[in-house]
Amino acid sequence: MIVTIIGTGLIGGSLAITLKERGFATKVIGVDLVQENLHKALRRKIIDEAASLAEAIVVSELIILAIPVDAMLKVLPQVMDLVDQQIVMDVGSTKVAILQQIAHHPKRAQFVATHPMAGTEYSGPESALPDLFDHKCAVICEVEKSSTKAHRLIKQLYQSLQMRLIYLTAAAHDMHTAYISHISHISSFALALTVLEKEDEEERILELASGGFSSTVRLAKSNPKMWIPIFEQNRENVLEVLDEYLKNLQQFRDLLANKDFGNLAQLIRKANDIQKILK
Amino acid sequence: MIVTIIGTGLIGGSLAITLKERGFATKVIGVDLVQENLHKALRRKIIDEAASLAEAIVVSELIILAIPVDAMLKVLPQVMDLVDQQIVMDVGSTKVAILQQIAHHPKRAQFVATHPMAGTEYSGPESALPDLFDHKCAVICEVEKSSTKAHRLIKQLYQSLQMRLIYLTAAAHDMHTAYISHISHISSFALALTVLEKEDEEERILELASGGFSSTVRLAKSNPKMWIPIFEQNRENVLEVLDEYLKNLQQFRDLLANKDFGNLAQLIRKANDIQKILK
Repeated sequence: MIVTIIGTGLIGGSLAITLKERGFATKVIGVDLVQENLHKALRRKIIDEAASLAEAIVVSELIILAIPVDAMLKVLPQVMDLVDQQIVMDVGSTKVAILQQIAHHPKRAQFVATHPMAGTEYSGPESALPDLFDHKCAVICEVEKSSTKAHRLIKQLYQSLQMRLIYLTAAAHDMHTAYISHISHISSFALALTVLEKEDEEERILELASGGFSSTVRLAKSNPKMWIPIFEQNRENVLEVLDEYLKNLQQFRDLLANKDFGNLAQLIRKANDIQKILK
Repeated sequence: MIVTIIGTGLIGGSLAITLKERGFATKVIGVDLVQENLHKALRRKIIDEAASLAEAIVVSELIILAIPVDAMLKVLPQVMDLVDQQIVMDVGSTKVAILQQIAHHPKRAQFVATHPMAGTEYSGPESALPDLFDHKCAVICEVEKSSTKAHRLIKQLYQSLQMRLIYLTAAAHDMHTAYISHISHISSFALALTVLEKEDEEERILELASGGFSSTVRLAKSNPKMWIPIFEQNRENVLEVLDEYLKNLQQFRDLLANKDFGNLAQLIRKANDIQKILK
């Protein structure tokens, strides 16, 4: 099957590598507004050829959109207008806004809304990885509005990536991801800022940083071009989670300020329960 | 050299394994109030024998204290009272309170205050690792109050662990670690609480958790028996950093609430600078 991937960054590039490696795609055509990304992806043989949107769609059976979610709102309707019988899939990190955008499109049934829950703090085709998706989970939203044919193809695609499928409403997806992805990024961005501000005054603070700090702060390397549109489209959920996070931190602060170490220990034991769920 | 290690948990156990493996110690004697830890450490051959504090000290040249920092305040003076010519070293995560405790001890010069900046979210001898310290950095405090002989021995010890040495005042150490270790733990504990509270209402939230969330939250598995005494002894520094962290999070929140995505992007780009320092 010939697959077009729009956006040859971390996710698009990793999909290109893996879908060919696993035999799902026989050829991957890359489409990207950033010429440098296309050149890199071609040089590294991540994509087989580069083409314009219209040229690529005509010769493909499947079109995957792997672009930031603000660009998605603009490009997805264009793609839906251009396709004939082709199946279209997105991998955006938000779902409500994207699905609203094509809710009444005459070819809505040819589209499947998905979100593979995988990534790193890096971006661009140079960050693409062949094993990024292995054994992680992918969310499919509003599957009842996709045709059986489209759904079947996308199931095969994710099976070839060795991903587990989970079905959610778009609203549930956006709320869940605010909790298990978006807030982690804000927590890391704020942690990086706190330490960097102090590093300006005091030298060598970061010289001492060990594994614990690095793992908590690594998401702070994430690209604002990807994350600002996510925060914009998922603003209400993110604000809700952020307020709960602030409340929990404030509770920690107050117990510490009041030297109430008994209740502080109880709070930590409650937090320890995360190990029952995350191995 | 025969070495006594008081506290056979993650750090003490890892020291025992590595100091023997690298040829620094010919024999390691374990001392632990928790009999189960001693049994585990013996069964796994992490220590060569178990003994009481007084028995172990008599036959050793070096005594290392690797116990929670509240126990340290009690046990360190006992050890200093018991030693004859032996060298004593601690590996506690706080330094001001510990050094105050033995500031005027007649054998102060035989003691070297250190903190190897290495660890994991796990505890107990079963978590001990042979490569925990490799290429990380160890802090030595108030070295001017240690004898040349004691300092030389501890330098050799950390060289055998392949650690880089950094010299700081106790006050600077406690401030630096509040920034690059203690706040990361609070950030993770609060994140775990936020998500666990929501998990109670809504199922499957954590099913979607991928690498980003796991790395931000992994420190939330850390043991309160170790961390409460650290927060207690380093309370003022931790409160200061926590207030700055809360301020940065609040700024994020306000920009998001006000839909000021331009300034939010600028804040993220500032946070991205962490990648220039942390690889």
